[in-house]
Amino acid sequence: MAAGNGLLHRRAFLAGGGTLAAAFTGYALSDTAAAQQLTDDSWSRGRGALIPEYASPSAFEKGVARTLSNPRGEPRTQHARTPHHLLNGTFTPNGLHFVISHSGAPDIDPATHRLVIHGLVRRPLVFSLDAITRYPLVSRMHFVECGGNSAPMFSNEPVQAGVQAIHGLVSCAEWTGVMLSTLLDEAGIDPGATWIIAEGSDSMALSRSVPIAKALDDAMVAIYQNGERLMPGNGYPMRLVLPGWEGNMQVKWLRRLELVDQPAMSYYEARTYAQVLPDGTAYQFYFLQDVKSFITHPSPGLRLNGPGFYEISGLAYSAGGRIAKVMVTADGGKSWAEAALQEPVHAKAFARFRIPWRWDGSPVVLQSRAWDEAGHVQPTRAEVVARRGQTKAPVTNLAAFPSQHYNGPTSWAVETDGNVRHVYA
Amino acid sequence: MAAGNGLLHRRAFLAGGGTLAAAFTGYALSDTAAAQQLTDDSWSRGRGALIPEYASPSAFEKGVARTLSNPRGEPRTQHARTPHHLLNGTFTPNGLHFVISHSGAPDIDPATHRLVIHGLVRRPLVFSLDAITRYPLVSRMHFVECGGNSAPMFSNEPVQAGVQAIHGLVSCAEWTGVMLSTLLDEAGIDPGATWIIAEGSDSMALSRSVPIAKALDDAMVAIYQNGERLMPGNGYPMRLVLPGWEGNMQVKWLRRLELVDQPAMSYYEARTYAQVLPDGTAYQFYFLQDVKSFITHPSPGLRLNGPGFYEISGLAYSAGGRIAKVMVTADGGKSWAEAALQEPVHAKAFARFRIPWRWDGSPVVLQSRAWDEAGHVQPTRAEVVARRGQTKAPVTNLAAFPSQHYNGPTSWAVETDGNVRHVYA
Repeated sequence: MAAGNGLLHRRAFLAGGGTLAAAFTGYALSDTAAAQQLTDDSWSRGRGALIPEYASPSAFEKGVARTLSNPRGEPRTQHARTPHHLLNGTFTPNGLHFVISHSGAPDIDPATHRLVIHGLVRRPLVFSLDAITRYPLVSRMHFVECGGNSAPMFSNEPVQAGVQAIHGLVSCAEWTGVMLSTLLDEAGIDPGATWIIAEGSDSMALSRSVPIAKALDDAMVAIYQNGERLMPGNGYPMRLVLPGWEGNMQVKWLRRLELVDQPAMSYYEARTYAQVLPDGTAYQFYFLQDVKSFITHPSPGLRLNGPGFYEISGLAYSAGGRIAKVMVTADGGKSWAEAALQEPVHAKAFARFRIPWRWDGSPVVLQSRAWDEAGHVQPTRAEVVARRGQTKAPVTNLAAFPSQHYNGPTSWAVETDGNVRHVYA
Repeated sequence: MAAGNGLLHRRAFLAGGGTLAAAFTGYALSDTAAAQQLTDDSWSRGRGALIPEYASPSAFEKGVARTLSNPRGEPRTQHARTPHHLLNGTFTPNGLHFVISHSGAPDIDPATHRLVIHGLVRRPLVFSLDAITRYPLVSRMHFVECGGNSAPMFSNEPVQAGVQAIHGLVSCAEWTGVMLSTLLDEAGIDPGATWIIAEGSDSMALSRSVPIAKALDDAMVAIYQNGERLMPGNGYPMRLVLPGWEGNMQVKWLRRLELVDQPAMSYYEARTYAQVLPDGTAYQFYFLQDVKSFITHPSPGLRLNGPGFYEISGLAYSAGGRIAKVMVTADGGKSWAEAALQEPVHAKAFARFRIPWRWDGSPVVLQSRAWDEAGHVQPTRAEVVARRGQTKAPVTNLAAFPSQHYNGPTSWAVETDGNVRHVYA
């Protein structure tokens, strides 16, 4: 209640009544004449468009798109980043779920695609998609995040970019599929099996080693994403979902699970995701996407239209389970107020936090910080870079960059003209 | 546990272990040679497709589409029905949310669209979309159902159709927007106001009267649907959401809310949704979409591929709040077993129910029945038609048809060849 720079109690609006309401007025274009004499706009004067078999967003929303790092699909990695500042709610619509693909999206015929389980099993099995859909299904809301999401935060100077460029490699969806434990139970696990090599049917056959304990815990073979079949870039017709773990391990276009007694030391686990830390150790086999949050509204690109009331809103998530608390500051960390979490909060999924705020028009610095139900706290940026290093701006050599698993906070400075920019605070 | 025709305990799979697992095998195409020598399919031998700015389903999913009653957009109502038998999970993806539109989808420019609140208020207000997004937002998972959904169930003989044709006019989404009570609080409600006339900016200016108590309870002005802006057919850029109430009242393309002291007796409330009942009274101002359920898997069009294990799965929902229980029968109602509900169960939203079932290949009749947390029970079909009448097949005169608010059960007969057809049982 006592937080500075206009943060209001998260339940202020629920209290109802006139006291607060009086403070919120002024955003309506109050005009009695207009209210009484509402004119027909052009779209009200004739029949509208045909309702199609499959809906797409309005043409007025064409700017609500993923940004592409490789829009011509040249023979290198493609990144498609989610525009979190243009979305709201608690998960990511399928059209805008982030994608990283190293060799495009394979055009897989689901009728002939097969999933093989072999290696240290009692009985190797081959599954068609039809066979998999006969098993009991579960639906779980989970985020997927690239280990390299938020990498620009390792720069020693704040990169002038917004939430899509900095944090666009995380999304959240309801995944429906078969528990991996069900399929492994069918195959029969040899007691010597400790890892599973998961392989995709993309042309690079991306593979990662997954500890068998995770496979038996909450891993899924997902076949539906937000109610419909997986999007092509998200692994159609089936992918591994490892809730809370590094996105790269959640192998898309899944075709093979080989049970083995040691990790494969495949490309990504041996190189990209085994970054050397300042103390000389390698950051290898660290799979968790730790507790994290960032403010989506306001954020760069969303200009505030004058002083007054706004809602500060953002996303928080953790491999540690449910988000328990998000604190927000409007004075660069001097005072904090607790945000409201949109219920129900799912484990290892986005939690949408919101807090009412009255901006007085002076320069302020906004930041959020999250806690999960296991007690993990989002570290400060200083804590993250002390342990893992930072890099000198401008960033040119991405390979040398500390780039993985940044989970510190993000600070947005609101300037007197209402523009929002990225700062370190 | 004792239910007939192969229904298993809903938690059978969670028990784990080999006993049940042994019974589930046989769906994998078990072939050791194939497992060891997985060949590269064509899509694994070259680069895949470009990742686009906005994702669409695989071309192999083109059959997963809404069925259109008026595919050329002739000057009459268009219906687009959701293919529930081809979806899974707990809500409807935006591409496939059902639509009924009487004059197409207006192509509204969100920058110039206005929402007016006037009539019995202290101060008439005009809101731009930008103004509305400054207020505190909430995200709620809610179903929307046409009052005429499931109308074919009033036929005195079972219409030979599947779940899309019979029940395709209901969908569920996460709606994010402003509580209507917040906006009304801004305008100031005159004590004499008892109804609100809500009007759309489609060319017919569809309008409905909403009791003010509902407006102050859980009504929303929604601007996001499953995380992104509303689809054009679902009311872009803003619509009324009246959780659990008749879809027709949840005015799309919302442009006006007039507070009044009596209902407007507009077209739909005076005619379509005021059907005369057998006892001579009119079914007017009955707004609730009562507790209901239907099985989506298996259902007509989804042929069972031989005896063995399957999951029976479906959807349940109620204006009365959360679904508390769904019972399933595999012997036409002689014995019942309780299905598992996918957690978390949201109020006035789809609940996905699931129960494992071992089919022995003999003819069976499947049916579901739902209860909500307020104690409402889904009535039998006999109870519904006793109160509201039925019509003689084939149905030709839709206007004379009892067609509104059917919420009885649906029975699917599984034949020995694995085909599924609609029966009354």
